[in-house]
Amino acid sequence: MKQFTHRVEVSTRGKGLYPITREIESWAKAQGLRTGLLTAFIQHTSASLTIQENADPDVVRDLDEFFERLAPEDADWYRHIIEGPDDMPAHIRAALTPTQLSIPLVEGRLALGTWQGIYVFEHRSRPHRRSIVLHLAGE
Amino acid sequence: MKQFTHRVEVSTRGKGLYPITREIESWAKAQGLRTGLLTAFIQHTSASLTIQENADPDVVRDLDEFFERLAPEDADWYRHIIEGPDDMPAHIRAALTPTQLSIPLVEGRLALGTWQGIYVFEHRSRPHRRSIVLHLAGE
Amino acid sequence: MKQFTHRVEVSTRGKGLYPITREIESWAKAQGLRTGLLTAFIQHTSASLTIQENADPDVVRDLDEFFERLAPEDADWYRHIIEGPDDMPAHIRAALTPTQLSIPLVEGRLALGTWQGIYVFEHRSRPHRRSIVLHLAGE
Repeated sequence: MKQFTHRVEVSTRGKGLYPITREIESWAKAQGLRTGLLTAFIQHTSASLTIQENADPDVVRDLDEFFERLAPEDADWYRHIIEGPDDMPAHIRAALTPTQLSIPLVEGRLALGTWQGIYVFEHRSRPHRRSIVLHLAGE
Repeated sequence: MKQFTHRVEVSTRGKGLYPITREIESWAKAQGLRTGLLTAFIQHTSASLTIQENADPDVVRDLDEFFERLAPEDADWYRHIIEGPDDMPAHIRAALTPTQLSIPLVEGRLALGTWQGIYVFEHRSRPHRRSIVLHLAGE
Repeated sequence: MKQFTHRVEVSTRGKGLYPITREIESWAKAQGLRTGLLTAFIQHTSASLTIQENADPDVVRDLDEFFERLAPEDADWYRHIIEGPDDMPAHIRAALTPTQLSIPLVEGRLALGTWQGIYVFEHRSRPHRRSIVLHLAGE
């Protein structure tokens, strides 16, 4: 078995989902393996990785509103407020969503379902540069 | 190190947990490895994989009610409603629960704790056929 | 590629986050690999693994309060109450937070971001002894 690692950088412009499926798929394909396991790991505590459907942009808007309602910026009981009103909600969102995803590689392709896309889920309001480490092992 | 992949299909009949521990364990055992890592990946955006206790069916009922209350079907603020009242709640549930699980194989057995079972967590009301891709690497 | 497994035991004293980064990093380093994938798997259904920031203890307090509010001990609709008021909330917390984390090993070090720490997230009130199985594969 062989191994490969890579780093993907994503620029975010506020809360929401940023697609990275194509970038991950094309890197995985370029390593030339038939069978294996790809792992994506985001190196942050206020952004996550998530798999969602891409078809309707309303899904993304509703998802964002759900998390705004679940962990609102103006909750009066937060103690940790020094880094801005979006910071403690970002910690909560990060606790509820994945830091890491592993996807099997089968017959040379990532085994994503028809409607599955991989996204960086940004939890902060201001622009950030997010770093995702990829690991692929197989043959 | 060797690698194996496999596909498990699960028929669901509405929201709730469907056990798949036995099917995964028996496939993993049949590959004859002593040490390794098993990864299960569900190829859908409206069903998840979860590890929960199996002892009391009330746990499953309460879990389901928790998610019904957290993301109710009749919330008046959803924009994405064209695929039915259970669709946007399904996206929210899927964002909050795992698409993928990896479990070490130690001394020829999956390292599940005594009370841990693996389940497909269905988020839609109607019957579905769900597909889970398994990957096992080790020796 | 080589593989290694190990078990880490953590004593908890009630709900909250218990750091295990140093123990995992030092074990991973001792195996002498340059590139690989480390997987941590917690063998329980009422405790999780999570990656969070360590800087401000208020973050941990707020996170705990968020989960207390999300799944309160005194909700009047729980059916599963025989194991104590903190038991059903523990199942809910465990459903919402990871049982397993996989982290790439790059240039001999776990690819954790600057602010990322690995924690056992205890969901029960009484002291427990928690068992985490580690798997490392690479070369």
